[in-house]
Amino acid sequence: MSTGDETRGLIGVLGGMGPLATIDFMHKVLAATPADTDQDHVPMLVSSIPQVPDRAAAFRGDGVSPLAAMIASGRRLVRAGASLVVIPCNTAHLWFDDIQRALGLPMLHLVDATLADAVAAVGGSGAIGLLCTDATLASGLYVNRAPQVRWALPTAHEMRDWVMPGIRAVKAGELDRGAELLGAAAQALARRGTQALVLGCTEVPLVLGASNAPVPVIDATASLARRAVAWSLAERRPT
Amino acid sequence: MSTGDETRGLIGVLGGMGPLATIDFMHKVLAATPADTDQDHVPMLVSSIPQVPDRAAAFRGDGVSPLAAMIASGRRLVRAGASLVVIPCNTAHLWFDDIQRALGLPMLHLVDATLADAVAAVGGSGAIGLLCTDATLASGLYVNRAPQVRWALPTAHEMRDWVMPGIRAVKAGELDRGAELLGAAAQALARRGTQALVLGCTEVPLVLGASNAPVPVIDATASLARRAVAWSLAERRPT
Repeated sequence: MSTGDETRGLIGVLGGMGPLATIDFMHKVLAATPADTDQDHVPMLVSSIPQVPDRAAAFRGDGVSPLAAMIASGRRLVRAGASLVVIPCNTAHLWFDDIQRALGLPMLHLVDATLADAVAAVGGSGAIGLLCTDATLASGLYVNRAPQVRWALPTAHEMRDWVMPGIRAVKAGELDRGAELLGAAAQALARRGTQALVLGCTEVPLVLGASNAPVPVIDATASLARRAVAWSLAERRPT
Repeated sequence: MSTGDETRGLIGVLGGMGPLATIDFMHKVLAATPADTDQDHVPMLVSSIPQVPDRAAAFRGDGVSPLAAMIASGRRLVRAGASLVVIPCNTAHLWFDDIQRALGLPMLHLVDATLADAVAAVGGSGAIGLLCTDATLASGLYVNRAPQVRWALPTAHEMRDWVMPGIRAVKAGELDRGAELLGAAAQALARRGTQALVLGCTEVPLVLGASNAPVPVIDATASLARRAVAWSLAERRPT
């Protein structure tokens, strides 16, 4: 089999959670890559298996664990020759350590990438808002990884009436309704003094961005994409 | 390892030719799937290796053959467990038979899918226009597979001044310029009596479509996506 250059810097994407968010991640990888021709772009293997059980439901105790399905999907990437694995789904990062142990490949952590960009955006002192699933919020996935940050979080009512229905609307392809609901949650956080808003669920940047958010946004999908591209370009650089 | 349902109907996408066209194909797979939740979508494995040598250049004798790289990329899909392989690149279909022999998996042929949709659109008697790479045109990839069709083809000047520069502009991310050049070629074909226009290079539908083409279009990427989804849904149906 080929041992040519195309095998170096091969990014494995454990995706399909959801499938549109995976496509959005791939778009952001292209956007983060300086390229004039096809061949300048970074190589990717994508396992987009949307049958992985719902991550947020599993965390709430409402469904089966997604771990076995995520590991099975990740092993497809290993067998296909990926050298790095990334997961463009925030909530899936609740199982990050287990997945990394099972796959035995280097991985980039989406939440760490996003937190670094968020702290850089507010200069370390401003309040950072967070739009994410109930599971990501309740598990402390973001908050516990950055205790030094001043967080502005949605209330239980805002999560129930706006954020979760907004994320579900995006997953069902109802993008206008998703934009309206998630926009309402963003406005509420802005009124409470949020200076920058982490889009901490990969469905959120599909409908909320610099053009329609009330404060600057940090798009977790883009943060992960930029780091994946930087990794691949460094691996592919002639030594 | 999981041997659950997610392994049935797994579409392998031999992609990266170009990477944006692969993302466009994935979008069209989602659009062709009736789905309310992530889990309703069809599973895909995508090998997006843009380092595959340029297909059109190889056909012209201006570069190395892409065959070995395409087979290596396809074998990643085989190792990862795909049950079907599709290639969202028209020109790559010049090597379709060799790839199919090497991979030993069922494949869907993009040109056959598109021709069926084109003949259905014009009712079998109207003239069909074709926007594609010089290699796809000169090789007879479309024309020789459907000798009963009345074709309206770009002239050598239109290929040189509009179609090929338009495709290259799209690959370089210059979408406005690509739309302008490919739109000019479409207008010329419409003036010569084309009743429907085959978008026979996966870069073309990225900038030309129902909203800005002078006649109805048959998008080869969408034709392939619809058939891939139908195949996967049939495979996944409980027996």
